[in-house]
Amino acid sequence: MRPRWKGKGAEAKALADPMSEIVSQLQSSLLQSNACALLSGCSVLLAVETEQTELLTRACFGKPIITAEKDKQWFQLGLEEAFYLCYSLKCLKIAGEDNFVKNDVDLWLYMKLKKEKFPDFYKAYSHLRMKNWVLRPGLQYGVDFVAYRHHPSLVHSEYAVIVLSEEGDAGRLRVWSDFHCTIRLCGSVAKTLLMLNVDKNGHGAISPSCLERYSVEECTITRWSPEQSRDDQKASENGAK
Amino acid sequence: MRPRWKGKGAEAKALADPMSEIVSQLQSSLLQSNACALLSGCSVLLAVETEQTELLTRACFGKPIITAEKDKQWFQLGLEEAFYLCYSLKCLKIAGEDNFVKNDVDLWLYMKLKKEKFPDFYKAYSHLRMKNWVLRPGLQYGVDFVAYRHHPSLVHSEYAVIVLSEEGDAGRLRVWSDFHCTIRLCGSVAKTLLMLNVDKNGHGAISPSCLERYSVEECTITRWSPEQSRDDQKASENGAK
Repeated sequence: MRPRWKGKGAEAKALADPMSEIVSQLQSSLLQSNACALLSGCSVLLAVETEQTELLTRACFGKPIITAEKDKQWFQLGLEEAFYLCYSLKCLKIAGEDNFVKNDVDLWLYMKLKKEKFPDFYKAYSHLRMKNWVLRPGLQYGVDFVAYRHHPSLVHSEYAVIVLSEEGDAGRLRVWSDFHCTIRLCGSVAKTLLMLNVDKNGHGAISPSCLERYSVEECTITRWSPEQSRDDQKASENGAK
Repeated sequence: MRPRWKGKGAEAKALADPMSEIVSQLQSSLLQSNACALLSGCSVLLAVETEQTELLTRACFGKPIITAEKDKQWFQLGLEEAFYLCYSLKCLKIAGEDNFVKNDVDLWLYMKLKKEKFPDFYKAYSHLRMKNWVLRPGLQYGVDFVAYRHHPSLVHSEYAVIVLSEEGDAGRLRVWSDFHCTIRLCGSVAKTLLMLNVDKNGHGAISPSCLERYSVEECTITRWSPEQSRDDQKASENGAK
């Protein structure tokens, strides 16, 4: 399936304005302002100025919250988003409810406590973000994330991402009914199902340093029709398949 | 992945000589000669004249066996191949070791006895054969079948086929290691992994008439690389991905 750009010129616009560039602008801007966010349950709150508001929006981190404050814009970041800015991009500090800045390990433990699968989810999130894929929550499609080639205002999400780990059979896609239900759903919303299997390679999750030892196996799953593949031979050779 | 034709002109040759046509020639020829094969353990032996030798070869059923007989050519058919000619194409009779022609139900029971997963394998085999895919045993790739767009002399096999059924967890691809091993193997031999999940929909396998009630869900699984999908954007749009 090809990327579905939103209207004419969207692709050119995306190519001219690479996500890697936008993210590094955001990174240096947050560094300069010595930005600090606040833990708040399962999300992280960050107050920024106009310039950073624009950068956070263009880089697609978090969502703005309407407040009474005129001079500041608040953003609500998901756990993976916040930890990515803090631990991977090193451009955000995060303070706990006690207003003291947490170190990486404490932050990791806090997030693990709030979200059991956080280590796997974070590995998957950072794995794709580092490759400049834009990730948003996949809740409305019943998956873990949706992945965009560029900003959602320019392109539809291409992949419905499910994060799998070896741990037990509690996970997704263990039974065929779930499997096919998910594949069909993805097809109906023109997304490809992308499975990221996070393998901890025997390393635990006691600290974020374990992340380097995790590996990620990716595969896409697509419904297949015997007729289509034969009749449209030409079409399929042109990549329309 | 596109079909990999064997040398120039192979594709044109295949298009000019559709498999459906070849198979129906074989069908009428076997009907005319009132062909009868013999059960022999896990395979079925068929003796044919020169014309049918050529048709069986072109339609890619069974493999020729060298014998001392000058006037006849013997073919060794797999269980699915033989049952397809007998039950689905109705152009072959099959006699048991007692030399009496077996009816469909007895034949079905015999084959089930020889091969526990025969009902699922046959459903998968016939499902693809009816769509004019050519199937050969997949043993050498550690899969159930390999599927060709046309005769193996013209094109490389495109799909490595694994047949899955709901029954128990004894089946393939239940653990990630097996899953990834299979996907990687398929990649290394330039085949796409095609999973056919045969659902008996609660109907047993007491007689071949159950086959009509079975349904088949197909999906392909492909390894995915985050870089490739982004960097080669153009290439992937041309279907090279």
